Amino acid sequence: MTFVTSPCTPEREKRQPEAPVFAVEVSDHIMIAHSFRGAVFGPAQALHGATFVVSVAVLADTLDPNGIVVDIGRAFDVLKGALDPLKYQNLDAMPQFKGVNTTTEFLAKHVFDRMAEAARKGDLGRAGRELSEVRVTVAESPSARAWYEAPLW
Amino acid sequence: MTFVTSPCTPEREKRQPEAPVFAVEVSDHIMIAHSFRGAVFGPAQALHGATFVVSVAVLADTLDPNGIVVDIGRAFDVLKGALDPLKYQNLDAMPQFKGVNTTTEFLAKHVFDRMAEAARKGDLGRAGRELSEVRVTVAESPSARAWYEAPLW
Amino acid sequence: MTFVTSPCTPEREKRQPEAPVFAVEVSDHIMIAHSFRGAVFGPAQALHGATFVVSVAVLADTLDPNGIVVDIGRAFDVLKGALDPLKYQNLDAMPQFKGVNTTTEFLAKHVFDRMAEAARKGDLGRAGRELSEVRVTVAESPSARAWYEAPLW
Amino acid sequence: MTFVTSPCTPEREKRQPEAPVFAVEVSDHIMIAHSFRGAVFGPAQALHGATFVVSVAVLADTLDPNGIVVDIGRAFDVLKGALDPLKYQNLDAMPQFKGVNTTTEFLAKHVFDRMAEAARKGDLGRAGRELSEVRVTVAESPSARAWYEAPLW
Amino acid sequence: MTFVTSPCTPEREKRQPEAPVFAVEVSDHIMIAHSFRGAVFGPAQALHGATFVVSVAVLADTLDPNGIVVDIGRAFDVLKGALDPLKYQNLDAMPQFKGVNTTTEFLAKHVFDRMAEAARKGDLGRAGRELSEVRVTVAESPSARAWYEAPLW
Amino acid sequence: MTFVTSPCTPEREKRQPEAPVFAVEVSDHIMIAHSFRGAVFGPAQALHGATFVVSVAVLADTLDPNGIVVDIGRAFDVLKGALDPLKYQNLDAMPQFKGVNTTTEFLAKHVFDRMAEAARKGDLGRAGRELSEVRVTVAESPSARAWYEAPLW
Repeated sequence: MTFVTSPCTPEREKRQPEAPVFAVEVSDHIMIAHSFRGAVFGPAQALHGATFVVSVAVLADTLDPNGIVVDIGRAFDVLKGALDPLKYQNLDAMPQFKGVNTTTEFLAKHVFDRMAEAARKGDLGRAGRELSEVRVTVAESPSARAWYEAPLW
Repeated sequence: MTFVTSPCTPEREKRQPEAPVFAVEVSDHIMIAHSFRGAVFGPAQALHGATFVVSVAVLADTLDPNGIVVDIGRAFDVLKGALDPLKYQNLDAMPQFKGVNTTTEFLAKHVFDRMAEAARKGDLGRAGRELSEVRVTVAESPSARAWYEAPLW
Repeated sequence: MTFVTSPCTPEREKRQPEAPVFAVEVSDHIMIAHSFRGAVFGPAQALHGATFVVSVAVLADTLDPNGIVVDIGRAFDVLKGALDPLKYQNLDAMPQFKGVNTTTEFLAKHVFDRMAEAARKGDLGRAGRELSEVRVTVAESPSARAWYEAPLW
Repeated sequence: MTFVTSPCTPEREKRQPEAPVFAVEVSDHIMIAHSFRGAVFGPAQALHGATFVVSVAVLADTLDPNGIVVDIGRAFDVLKGALDPLKYQNLDAMPQFKGVNTTTEFLAKHVFDRMAEAARKGDLGRAGRELSEVRVTVAESPSARAWYEAPLW
Repeated sequence: MTFVTSPCTPEREKRQPEAPVFAVEVSDHIMIAHSFRGAVFGPAQALHGATFVVSVAVLADTLDPNGIVVDIGRAFDVLKGALDPLKYQNLDAMPQFKGVNTTTEFLAKHVFDRMAEAARKGDLGRAGRELSEVRVTVAESPSARAWYEAPLW
Repeated sequence: MTFVTSPCTPEREKRQPEAPVFAVEVSDHIMIAHSFRGAVFGPAQALHGATFVVSVAVLADTLDPNGIVVDIGRAFDVLKGALDPLKYQNLDAMPQFKGVNTTTEFLAKHVFDRMAEAARKGDLGRAGRELSEVRVTVAESPSARAWYEAPLW
């Protein structure tokens, strides 16, 4: 059975050829206050804040008949809609963030969830099934950032 | 047969370990005019233009005996060769773009095709078979970009 | 057997859904001298130098109970520890680099090895087995960079 | 008369102490098509285009009672108002640019004129007389930009 | 008297030749929370936060015998000393900021005061009288920043 | 005589209105090795290196009949000519730098001297007398840079 199992075994020596992919990515930013709980955060346990530059990439196997992944203007609007509830907020005071650390990683996932839902519903202007993945990158400073990426289906 | 099929099933819960990969990436830019057809483009249906910052990444499983993926200088030259026909052009007036929307995504694929052909032919100074993938990223503004990536073989 | 082999065949037409992944990335820089051997390097065969901006991304399938991949402060410290022996050095004169071209690609792998070892040992403050990959990106100028990425296990 | 002339003579050996100054600067971008007339422009005589990143700095000797030069949000809106007529346009086809080369320098001055007029009229939310200078910077690529600065009064 | 008055009259038509000047500039960042009082701030009246990238430029008419304006390492340390009390703080809760809006402009001046005092006292490693001006730039996002500059003497 | 002296006295309370000015700025980079003499440099006394991103701004009171300060392409070529002798060099081994510390500040002045000479001679494609100042900025890392600026006449 080795000849069957063999091609399925993760090949660590040779990178598996991935299928082609297109992507578009748009960026916006928010300025928020928050604090963290946990000794690991050191001085960041105090109430402080951040300018988060948030970039959302939408991936698709093919371009649509217009020659795009999704419309960049539409992607900006949907991202803006996802960020608006956070703008100029103290995240510690928002009910939906009660009891969680709103870390850069967490916020990447938070924005991902909203973007992915919009993408699946067709709110990016293209049938959700034609889109494959979303990646959300959140930069907290010129020297640190986090991201979350996942397939849509 | 489940024990055979099982390792082949896409594992959504655990990211599949990818093999190691090296990459080099070089950048250049072009300044072009174009227009788009399709209501989705709104005001961008008018003749306008863009500075496109184009980055090409070449991936390989291993470094060559010199300790490189490909020579960065050579990669610059090949990228320049791919971009030169587009520099200071009105893309609407170029025969090869007749009837297509020269979107940021489309141009990423257009440059990819030229870079991939050069890579396969050994024009990057290394046997094409030793190179695995190419990714072309095109930034149209500080807040929007697109990319296309695909295996070479 | 085709029905078994089939799902294992690399599917070039459709990108395989990857499992979700989180990442954090931190950056620092070094200023070093070195030279290269090999005609391919042209004028860079002479003793010259570079400011290398080094970014290290650590990937994980899940966040830890604090809501992080690893602590960004800790990641900075470990990166600094990996870079300190190189800071303000002539790499040509360092015994461990004898006979190798310390190219941007090579240095990405060099820093990867140190970061990966630290990650596996838990020096990033999280059990190494909970971390999946590391990617090290090294920019040598505004228009050229290299990277190396590999799974940790 | 030397004691009179002396302090007035341009002192080339010692930089004249300038009075303190505050500034705020905001940025936006436009994507336009245009062409240039004049052999000096070489290939840029053809119809091409650009993404122009436009930054406007407003200078004042003092902060207002709110602790600001002018409100950044207001400055964004006024800049947007100055740029909107240019967005997605072919500048060659706009009557007000007939017979002029809409160079990066020229556009810096063009935006300056609109920003300066708004500043003088109080449209930035502060008495124009309390503002001293405006500087408009226009980047046409990662490696080239132009600016124009002038006093308001 | 015109021949006397004339060179003293502000010449609006011709930019006055300024004496040569050298500068060095170093950057660091802070992540803070704060809120503003005043209708002009709109939603920013709420408690929010920012990552502020703070750059300090020190100007001098001449280089010292080492060929520098001031040591860049020393400038980093002094800037760090000026920023450390603000790092991860809620500025609203700091006694020294009671009753003031800690705007980007205000913070540029705040850091200036500390850097200027250090420069005058020789804490930058050079006699204060040999330094002429300091400029502090504070970026609050990729599209907005403020600065304050003033002579030291 | 006070009425005469008065306008000449450095007015520290009110910034002197400067005449309008136009500028264009272009950038390139070099990768060099060097070392410094002097305890102030600490570890940078060892042979190390840097990628220097060099930007040259040329200022003028007015635009020429083409609507430019100087041709950006020409400015690039002249900057390239100024940098070519330094590219991939060990500055310690260049006779013209014998006995000097080739600091970032020093190199800003070094490039200035070449650019200013070219500007005065008309090598930027415009009568030197129509150009007023040159500023050369040299970035050695994402967080440190230096500049030198001076009038041409």
